[in-house]
Amino acid sequence: MFTDLSEFHEWFAHRGREQRQRVTKIPLDELEGWAADPLTGNIAHHTGGFFTVEGLDVTRSGRGVEAWQQPILVQPEQGVLGILVREFDGVPHCLLQAKMEPGNVNGLQLSPTVQATRSNISQIHGGRTVPYLRYFTAPRKGLVLSDVLQSEQASWFLAKRNRNMMVRVDEDVPVLDEFCWLSFPQISALMRLPNLMNMDTRTVLAGAAGLRLSEGDGSEDSFRGALTRSREADTSLHSMVEVLSWFTEAKGRCTLTRRSIPLNKVGGWSHRDGAIKHDLDLHFSVIGVDVESDSREVARWRQPMFEPRGQGIIAFLVKRIRGVLHLLVQARIETGALDGVEMAPTVQCQPDNYRSLPPARRPLFLDEVLGAPEDRIRFDSVHSEEGGRFYHARNRYLMVEVGDDFGPDVPEDYTWVTLRQLTEFVRYGNHLNVEARSLLTFFGFYEEE
Amino acid sequence: MFTDLSEFHEWFAHRGREQRQRVTKIPLDELEGWAADPLTGNIAHHTGGFFTVEGLDVTRSGRGVEAWQQPILVQPEQGVLGILVREFDGVPHCLLQAKMEPGNVNGLQLSPTVQATRSNISQIHGGRTVPYLRYFTAPRKGLVLSDVLQSEQASWFLAKRNRNMMVRVDEDVPVLDEFCWLSFPQISALMRLPNLMNMDTRTVLAGAAGLRLSEGDGSEDSFRGALTRSREADTSLHSMVEVLSWFTEAKGRCTLTRRSIPLNKVGGWSHRDGAIKHDLDLHFSVIGVDVESDSREVARWRQPMFEPRGQGIIAFLVKRIRGVLHLLVQARIETGALDGVEMAPTVQCQPDNYRSLPPARRPLFLDEVLGAPEDRIRFDSVHSEEGGRFYHARNRYLMVEVGDDFGPDVPEDYTWVTLRQLTEFVRYGNHLNVEARSLLTFFGFYEEE
Repeated sequence: MFTDLSEFHEWFAHRGREQRQRVTKIPLDELEGWAADPLTGNIAHHTGGFFTVEGLDVTRSGRGVEAWQQPILVQPEQGVLGILVREFDGVPHCLLQAKMEPGNVNGLQLSPTVQATRSNISQIHGGRTVPYLRYFTAPRKGLVLSDVLQSEQASWFLAKRNRNMMVRVDEDVPVLDEFCWLSFPQISALMRLPNLMNMDTRTVLAGAAGLRLSEGDGSEDSFRGALTRSREADTSLHSMVEVLSWFTEAKGRCTLTRRSIPLNKVGGWSHRDGAIKHDLDLHFSVIGVDVESDSREVARWRQPMFEPRGQGIIAFLVKRIRGVLHLLVQARIETGALDGVEMAPTVQCQPDNYRSLPPARRPLFLDEVLGAPEDRIRFDSVHSEEGGRFYHARNRYLMVEVGDDFGPDVPEDYTWVTLRQLTEFVRYGNHLNVEARSLLTFFGFYEEE
Repeated sequence: MFTDLSEFHEWFAHRGREQRQRVTKIPLDELEGWAADPLTGNIAHHTGGFFTVEGLDVTRSGRGVEAWQQPILVQPEQGVLGILVREFDGVPHCLLQAKMEPGNVNGLQLSPTVQATRSNISQIHGGRTVPYLRYFTAPRKGLVLSDVLQSEQASWFLAKRNRNMMVRVDEDVPVLDEFCWLSFPQISALMRLPNLMNMDTRTVLAGAAGLRLSEGDGSEDSFRGALTRSREADTSLHSMVEVLSWFTEAKGRCTLTRRSIPLNKVGGWSHRDGAIKHDLDLHFSVIGVDVESDSREVARWRQPMFEPRGQGIIAFLVKRIRGVLHLLVQARIETGALDGVEMAPTVQCQPDNYRSLPPARRPLFLDEVLGAPEDRIRFDSVHSEEGGRFYHARNRYLMVEVGDDFGPDVPEDYTWVTLRQLTEFVRYGNHLNVEARSLLTFFGFYEEE
């Protein structure tokens, strides 16, 4: 445990020196252990494990019809993302790991106690066993705090879900070198730092976003008071039945047709410079990397990764309604998600993709977010997406408070919800996308700077 | 409105005389308007609408591995099942329809106010408009009481879901000839009669199973008291987090692989006597019917239907735990369900399929249900499944109370839940299968005989 965060930073810097990693981009055709099928071009590992890169043909219709093709990561197996919780002197702490991932822009980030694909669990790569995994597999001794299948980046993954678990134990837990205990207020403070809490940590912590961290400032005027009421109070602009109905209605309005196609038949994309790239250099590229590491189960390996072309924007517009903070949530068609539509942040896009388009074709509310005055921005931090699959994938996460001149009337694919309502949806899975869950975690653990 | 149920029965008998229908089984190759694809044998309507009959290859593994092939109904579009609710003198009533369906063993049954496929809604068959539909499509004037996508028979349907809605209005509603208002206690009494409340009515009403119908008898000893506490009290053997974790764990334990195959390549099934039948005469047959009706949108048509080989058993074992009734729910691999696993009744099977098997291979708890003494059976009624797709498909729905010698320890795919917990799961969709929702409705509206 750390008595203050400077101790943590010292420890983390030390870890960075201990756990070295060298990542080099290499051409896709030099991916030892991986091969493109001669017929389809689909990229697979020689064991059949991990994941594959395939092609997807998508047609979606809501108000208009859109159709496109793209490469997609296929990883149907479910892994486990688990955080172990233990109280010290009555204060709950989470066991997090300083973990190197090849896609991390800064090497080391804080990951959950356990971040294991099914391939990890079944030892497909003959590496070391996953520490602490026994706390998350039956029969367990601890108390389960949350346990639900959640989707991951549905623009890049087809039907990928991981089991998100938090388990509390009361027994002594040996702490390995790369691991540390952090309290929720400490985690909350560290979330303001860029590229530190990795995606897996953020999504698992969403399961605890409804926890009462401290006595909130209940005054009518403060932002913090409105946020505390949003997390705890039972009042909201729309009832749960109304929000569920809005969500069902949105699912009925759209149709999403997805069809697997060979990777070498994906229109609009081509092999260039050893990678698979979009012909207009938009979206992302499929690249190869060579990784040398002394901290992972396997010391050296090569793998394909997705490298986004630009930094994304993920933002919730928020508004005080009758003193309770409400978030503007979007029912968003999610290419790879199990049910096609999930609840997403108000804005979620790569602005670069829209730079040359007229305002009418830019994503709704993007300009409200980018043009927000400094004193309206309640949270603003750049975080990384899953560094095991995505190379230098960063998003700017924002919380922007709108004024009285905005809403509450909004377009039909949007609605206002409270934090309490979102934390309820998170429990049941298949409702919030991973981007919304990340922001929910920031909100749930929000402390004033 | 009916002052007593004899008035209802008189009205219903009158409707039976007014709405005549003649259904004749015909060979599949005489299905005018429908044709089998020469290459695949898949059966489709010439418009491309309604549904198709295709082949499915299934592999599932949990403790062991099972693999089989079967015909399956494919109907990816979502229809609307809606019940309109209005108070008369402070008493809520539901608007139900006396509706003829070709598969109904007795012709007429009580269906929801609206039972519309998307084909109905978009008028694909050029028939009459669906009455009352406007109450269920946006913009609506009424108050939405429940609104959620729910799965249907996953042994026979691939990924079929319908939108289940209840909408309350305060305005006058014209009542067409085939429609009537029934109060919840009246519906509750009518549920004890066989083959009257159709499947669609039962699943929609599951959205209201948590309603407080009347002051329960709170005495510790009575079954009714235990049931009322199960519906209303906040105490349960397992917390919601524990039940959700049990459900997530069960999903992780099994894998289900489904692959569409041509209907004419389905192994173990063959064309015989104008139908597609299982080679051992188990499960169901795909048959053709000719329908003449004067009450439907179209007066005469032909269509394929699924005809089960025998009557099924659908039962919950229930047990009083600390004075609160608990239901033994099963995490069941559901062939056609979106997420592969749903919560199902304790027992759900066609006993005929297992008659010749040794006891160890018979479904768990089937013998407890079939051998239950009379005084342990709390509910026992035969009901029909969806008469638009299934021909004479009937299931015996049972509620059997076990004694102190049973449980509470149960195998890992089973757990004890309260009615209150089940009604919570129903709100979010993708949790309870249609058979469990039917039984939940019977429990939710349970009154002593």
